[in-house]
Amino acid sequence: MEKIVLALGGNALGNSPEEQKEAVKHTAKSIVDLVEAGKKIIISHGNGPQVGMINLAFDAAGKTEAKTPAMPFPECGAMSQGYIGYHLQNAIENELKARGHKKMVATIVSQVLVDPEDPAFENPTKPIGSFYSKEEADQMASQGLVFKEDAGRGYRRVVASPKPVDIVEKDAIKLLYDKDCIVVAGGGGGIPVIEKDGGLTGVAAVIDKDFTSAKLAELVDADALIILTAVEKIAINFGKENEEWLDQISVEDAYKYIDEGHFAPGSMLPKVQAAISFAKTKEGREALITSLEKAAEALDGKTGTTIKM
Amino acid sequence: MEKIVLALGGNALGNSPEEQKEAVKHTAKSIVDLVEAGKKIIISHGNGPQVGMINLAFDAAGKTEAKTPAMPFPECGAMSQGYIGYHLQNAIENELKARGHKKMVATIVSQVLVDPEDPAFENPTKPIGSFYSKEEADQMASQGLVFKEDAGRGYRRVVASPKPVDIVEKDAIKLLYDKDCIVVAGGGGGIPVIEKDGGLTGVAAVIDKDFTSAKLAELVDADALIILTAVEKIAINFGKENEEWLDQISVEDAYKYIDEGHFAPGSMLPKVQAAISFAKTKEGREALITSLEKAAEALDGKTGTTIKM
Repeated sequence: MEKIVLALGGNALGNSPEEQKEAVKHTAKSIVDLVEAGKKIIISHGNGPQVGMINLAFDAAGKTEAKTPAMPFPECGAMSQGYIGYHLQNAIENELKARGHKKMVATIVSQVLVDPEDPAFENPTKPIGSFYSKEEADQMASQGLVFKEDAGRGYRRVVASPKPVDIVEKDAIKLLYDKDCIVVAGGGGGIPVIEKDGGLTGVAAVIDKDFTSAKLAELVDADALIILTAVEKIAINFGKENEEWLDQISVEDAYKYIDEGHFAPGSMLPKVQAAISFAKTKEGREALITSLEKAAEALDGKTGTTIKM
Repeated sequence: MEKIVLALGGNALGNSPEEQKEAVKHTAKSIVDLVEAGKKIIISHGNGPQVGMINLAFDAAGKTEAKTPAMPFPECGAMSQGYIGYHLQNAIENELKARGHKKMVATIVSQVLVDPEDPAFENPTKPIGSFYSKEEADQMASQGLVFKEDAGRGYRRVVASPKPVDIVEKDAIKLLYDKDCIVVAGGGGGIPVIEKDGGLTGVAAVIDKDFTSAKLAELVDADALIILTAVEKIAINFGKENEEWLDQISVEDAYKYIDEGHFAPGSMLPKVQAAISFAKTKEGREALITSLEKAAEALDGKTGTTIKM
């Protein structure tokens, strides 16, 4: 049985609970298609819009007479894992049941270890939360937070986007996965934690969910990592006359195309980098970049872009 | 090895992320004491103050220019499971590590099935969320929500508190538990779901966490259920001259004391009822009511109130 890690985008989950409930029904159909094709599945997912919404709700409510407490970023991420995990597992369970299958589905709240010496902490780039005036930003900056001006719209807090080093709950995830449970894990790239005073402590950061998915796939010894995106395949010379859609490329090719600047930073580039980071760990491991609808066909080698050694 | 389900109160977790982080450190010490005494542990927990905070944040923020979407109650519960589960598992992992142990710890996002025909739905009693004026309440009541006047402080939405029928993720929980993982599950009594259109759908309700803990203990075949509270033992004729602290009572005695009105509704009564609901499922199963600090001693029969057949 082929073991798959599926990396789902947070943007594909919508901007409200109602939108998300609808979106996960659609996602669940593709996932159960994969189950019927004999695949074992771990789902990791992004949480950009969702953790942003939670962070914003606490930010805004704290200034009203509701006076709810400030909610640190790792805790907002933990909330988003519960919120998205619940919808995903519910929709997958319902779709399995509708097709007459019985199978375990579970969401594991996941902490992901990052290195406090990761160079990303030197230069935080990931904007989170609300917009502030320069005065407000300066005031909060004096308490150690970092702010950047955001395209004329005001100042926003920025946090680092370090690479995942380890997944704290990997043994529990692997145990469930090996017993044929569909596991939702590493949500939003995981709750970032660093080693401090002999234990693990949450830190304000955003781990790219594709890199966490690659790490997860490596740790559970998956055969394939599928990074889902809006397009069926990736291209070089995208949008140009000599545009070329890629079927299968080597890790070496992928590095070359990166060096040649074919992939947009903040968009396709991190997906290709995450795909490489898994594919290069072991002979035979495949990373696929494709759309949710084409995932099953891509695993059959009919579409998608495959990166392997 | 004795298998234990530990039901932790949501009030003991504090009212802010900082308070909760401190509270779980203390909780983790007692839990690791139990681990060192050779016990296998599932932790379920309340979420009253936490889900209230999340609900309130979205309520309040939705009325500001942040315009975050309304967050239904089951989704708020799912968020609280992520939020509390993260802090609990982190603190337990850190305490284990500090004492030189290595053991899996994992939080499972948990849905709990309730019966739409449960009489509790006829008479919702559990207040949730913000206070409203009579006009606001009447307006929302016209959309199907139920409001009650709350001790002169305004109107609050009330939801039903049905009994747990099943725990959807029980197989995954049991699998981890049987492999010696410390599992956090059934948080806040679980995300309440009903069967509808062939699948499971979230419903606005609050399941008493002690009843969910009792159901969890039954489903995973635990030897003991420990319901934690502020006192070391329970008493009959509490606060009177003939007050008597109870060491060990039968299920039959417990029913008799309930009939005689010894236990306060909304306080000790549901704990005793939940304890009975587990103890009566099988010969040899024990339900203990005691404080966190005394849990280990209570398991040794030195303190606490034990209810068994």
